[in-house]
Amino acid sequence: MDVRAAIALEPGKPLVVDTVQLEGPRDGEVLIEIMATGICHTDKYTLSGQDPEGVFPAILGHEGAGIVRKVGKGVTSVKPGDHVIPVYIPECRQCPACLSQKTNLCTAIRATQGRGLMPDGTTRFSYKGKPVHNYMGCSTFANFTVVPEIAVAKIRPDAPFDRACYVGCGVTTGVGSVIWGAKVEPNSTVAVFGLGGIGLNVIQGAKMVGARQIVGVDINPARAPLAEKFGMTDFLNPAALPEGEDVVSKIIEMTGGGADYTFECIGNVTLMRQALESAHRGWGVACVIGVAAAGQEISTRPFQLITGRKWMGTAYGGARGRTDTPKVVDMYMEGRVDIDDLITNRIPLEKINEAFEMMGRGEGIRTVVDYSL
Amino acid sequence: MDVRAAIALEPGKPLVVDTVQLEGPRDGEVLIEIMATGICHTDKYTLSGQDPEGVFPAILGHEGAGIVRKVGKGVTSVKPGDHVIPVYIPECRQCPACLSQKTNLCTAIRATQGRGLMPDGTTRFSYKGKPVHNYMGCSTFANFTVVPEIAVAKIRPDAPFDRACYVGCGVTTGVGSVIWGAKVEPNSTVAVFGLGGIGLNVIQGAKMVGARQIVGVDINPARAPLAEKFGMTDFLNPAALPEGEDVVSKIIEMTGGGADYTFECIGNVTLMRQALESAHRGWGVACVIGVAAAGQEISTRPFQLITGRKWMGTAYGGARGRTDTPKVVDMYMEGRVDIDDLITNRIPLEKINEAFEMMGRGEGIRTVVDYSL
Repeated sequence: MDVRAAIALEPGKPLVVDTVQLEGPRDGEVLIEIMATGICHTDKYTLSGQDPEGVFPAILGHEGAGIVRKVGKGVTSVKPGDHVIPVYIPECRQCPACLSQKTNLCTAIRATQGRGLMPDGTTRFSYKGKPVHNYMGCSTFANFTVVPEIAVAKIRPDAPFDRACYVGCGVTTGVGSVIWGAKVEPNSTVAVFGLGGIGLNVIQGAKMVGARQIVGVDINPARAPLAEKFGMTDFLNPAALPEGEDVVSKIIEMTGGGADYTFECIGNVTLMRQALESAHRGWGVACVIGVAAAGQEISTRPFQLITGRKWMGTAYGGARGRTDTPKVVDMYMEGRVDIDDLITNRIPLEKINEAFEMMGRGEGIRTVVDYSL
Repeated sequence: MDVRAAIALEPGKPLVVDTVQLEGPRDGEVLIEIMATGICHTDKYTLSGQDPEGVFPAILGHEGAGIVRKVGKGVTSVKPGDHVIPVYIPECRQCPACLSQKTNLCTAIRATQGRGLMPDGTTRFSYKGKPVHNYMGCSTFANFTVVPEIAVAKIRPDAPFDRACYVGCGVTTGVGSVIWGAKVEPNSTVAVFGLGGIGLNVIQGAKMVGARQIVGVDINPARAPLAEKFGMTDFLNPAALPEGEDVVSKIIEMTGGGADYTFECIGNVTLMRQALESAHRGWGVACVIGVAAAGQEISTRPFQLITGRKWMGTAYGGARGRTDTPKVVDMYMEGRVDIDDLITNRIPLEKINEAFEMMGRGEGIRTVVDYSL
């Protein structure tokens, strides 16, 4: 079938919005009509060509929501008409990772997904007769996509697509890191490095679970008001610190010894170190969420660990793709999580390159492509 | 009173065995007759002068066992005649750290202890009329010592001192890191970097809790037989790996994806990184036990954390000084922990410098000064 898509033909070049061909779902696969998709920094990173795992040509996009239109043979967990979010971390419930009950990082289709292929090693998309790779197992920059059943999270039918799509990455990554990743307890102190989309979602997750102090750290004070609305109790601008004062000491002072939980939401290895070292001696947990550029490394003195800090990280907030994604949609629908304030731009697919440029300028929180526009 | 002691007069020089003066216990303090003390690498490190926190002159030693001979005013938890281990991590049960129930790192007397002083800011030891610092709050290289009540762990009276003393550091650090630090579960896979005293105690801890595979890593194959006796199931000699094979890949292969828990028992930052990276994707926990030299740093790619590995560390095995130390003595007395095989040398105090030299040559596991010799 013909579908509308934004194609990443080569690294570093704008996307090409055109008609591509999509094959129907094979055994165990699901055809989804994507109704809306967010545009994430990870898409931008891969498009830039810096992502060593990026393959081209590809249909990017991994933060979508839509409706099941057709299912392949053997598919039992969803049916046409179901509202769903395709998830880039699948959940097969059969592999050692799923069965460990200790991680969300299902390995069932990791090898093919990493190479931009369906589990059978082929692609469903093609353009001008040539195969086009999929991306993160989702490829939501197309108004139809085919994904494996194990990567389809069924959500409630009354959730608006242009909000629910953000659950497919940013919201769950932030909120999930608090509740399923680091497992922040009520009455904790929390420090959040970076008040962009991920950081704001960490903040609202921390507020939801009853953190008593939430320190937001950002060099852009314009971000403070929205962060406060989301639950930030204290703002720290590293750029405004007096000469000789450093972020780590300041957080330790503000939190009375260091934060119980810290989150790095940017992908900056220097901030990752600060986040670890501003965690409380004895029990502080520092959670890396941001994705650093290829080849970059984090460092610290091992004394930081010996004295009781823990360094961890999350992908997709530690959320299980099919089990936990619908819960985050419910949190939004029940008013415990705010998404409305985070969707700062709704555009038709044709304007997707402008959205990437806006992102480059640091404007807005989340732009959503609404396929109904 | 006059006591026999080995005095560290200046960094880098041999200890001087001589008579020093010891003041009796003040309020909240306990006079202990030390019956035996182990000699640990940390003593050697401080004596070398490389420890930036080392103060001189001092009575080193932090791995002792003995008998309470006198208690100061207000002491209620021990009485003369009690058999005890002085612990370098106290347990006041009142400070935020103790009350957190998340760490063993009691902060009650941290500031003074770090400067080689009693909680009131003075010393009890003196030599030729001048004050001599204590060390790690213990100073067991003297046949009598005074420590605060909160640093005294009461143990069963039938435990032999020349074994029980080792519980005061090495045994608890290794076994404790498994059970209270990393909390290894039954049926886990474990990798242990370094088969010295700490590593062997990690191994027997892992065996005790029911680990199913225990990989020992050491460049000295002479250490393998004892490690096997303690529970090691697989030996890996990095120096014997074929060209092109690395330790991390090998452990991942041997354990089927990485070890559930890894322990660095040397203090080598390169091994700390290997230990993290050979932990299992999704849930592997890497525990730093070894103390690195001042200024050294650990590094890794943050991807290692994002994909589910956790980096942590322990001091004194995560054991609470007064609550958990006696449990480890019980483990020995009840045959669940082997100490006998680890005490490879018993000497009188006069030969303590020879023991440091032996340690420098990597001979034996643990030398114990037995004050009855």
